[in-house]
Amino acid sequence: MPKIVDHATRREEIAEALWRVVRRDGIRAASVRTVAAEAGWSAGAVRYYFPDQDGLLSFAMDLVSRRVTARVSAVSAKGSVPTIVLRYLDEVLPLDAERRAEFEIWLAFMAQAQAESGAGTLHALVDRVHNELRELCTLLINALAENELLRDGLDVRREIERLHAVLDGLALHAAIQPAHSTPTRIRQLMRHHIESLLGVTVDPTP
Amino acid sequence: MPKIVDHATRREEIAEALWRVVRRDGIRAASVRTVAAEAGWSAGAVRYYFPDQDGLLSFAMDLVSRRVTARVSAVSAKGSVPTIVLRYLDEVLPLDAERRAEFEIWLAFMAQAQAESGAGTLHALVDRVHNELRELCTLLINALAENELLRDGLDVRREIERLHAVLDGLALHAAIQPAHSTPTRIRQLMRHHIESLLGVTVDPTP
Repeated sequence: MPKIVDHATRREEIAEALWRVVRRDGIRAASVRTVAAEAGWSAGAVRYYFPDQDGLLSFAMDLVSRRVTARVSAVSAKGSVPTIVLRYLDEVLPLDAERRAEFEIWLAFMAQAQAESGAGTLHALVDRVHNELRELCTLLINALAENELLRDGLDVRREIERLHAVLDGLALHAAIQPAHSTPTRIRQLMRHHIESLLGVTVDPTP
Repeated sequence: MPKIVDHATRREEIAEALWRVVRRDGIRAASVRTVAAEAGWSAGAVRYYFPDQDGLLSFAMDLVSRRVTARVSAVSAKGSVPTIVLRYLDEVLPLDAERRAEFEIWLAFMAQAQAESGAGTLHALVDRVHNELRELCTLLINALAENELLRDGLDVRREIERLHAVLDGLALHAAIQPAHSTPTRIRQLMRHHIESLLGVTVDPTP
């Protein structure tokens, strides 16, 4: 019986090698050749899966998006609504090595998209992940609003934008000064932000 | 009488040429040679002011910091404390081309510092500007606290961190999706954030 090659796993292996190259040397250094070297593969083997750099970059950014989506989908819906909201937010804050790597990759893509003016592949990829995060914020603020947990006078649309800003601001600070903006601290700040929208203390159950 | 060369102006000219190169091609593209070409100077003339790339990058980042400081120092102290606080924040949000360029430069330095692990020149420069912004947030939240304008139960240290996160989050969003996060919108969101700390509406005088 012929060996069954798990193509999905191989593609992820290549994307992860690309993550390592981007995090170490920047996006400009990522090519089929350098990524093949990082993965310990031949350039031809990488090209079998990704004929060009654009396809490779798209898949690597896609992997960020799919990992976040997978974690978010697995979030337990037990407990009070604010507790569940915070649990979702935990999955998109850079609280551990995996989530930090995802944010760093997104940051690298974003910075490079900025440098490349106009609407290129990178712009589209960064945009997509940015919109996905805004959709999550929309979902969470709506959940609070529908359960009548938001403080009086708060505007739902504005709170979606503010939550999104706090989320990206905290993630950015954790990337810039990890010793100052520790996982514990950014988690506490996020909890405090959600509490400030409720005007009540969130049930401390995990 | 010999021509008086304004060395300070020349150094700023070079730093601005470096900004253009970094914004267009990324930090890795910035060298004494490419910056000289951008400024229309000889490499020798640039080296007279900046013997190496580290000195050039430091000065370019320094220019961001000095421009922000100059604008912040010029902020009028007329009006209510919340109005003055918002006026300060206007100076550090990317509301016009100049402030957008400053943020983009900082972002480019930051992303490159992330890619270069360890404590290099870029890390130190990014750290300094990050700390300066946190100091401004400290000053503003303290001003609200000392004038007894903060809502009961708010923790000053936590609000400094949250304001800093909102500020960088909004700036990041303006850089990623300028059509969505317009100057008007990020200004409104910032005003809303400050108002939420006061629990009262800020006097709408400019």
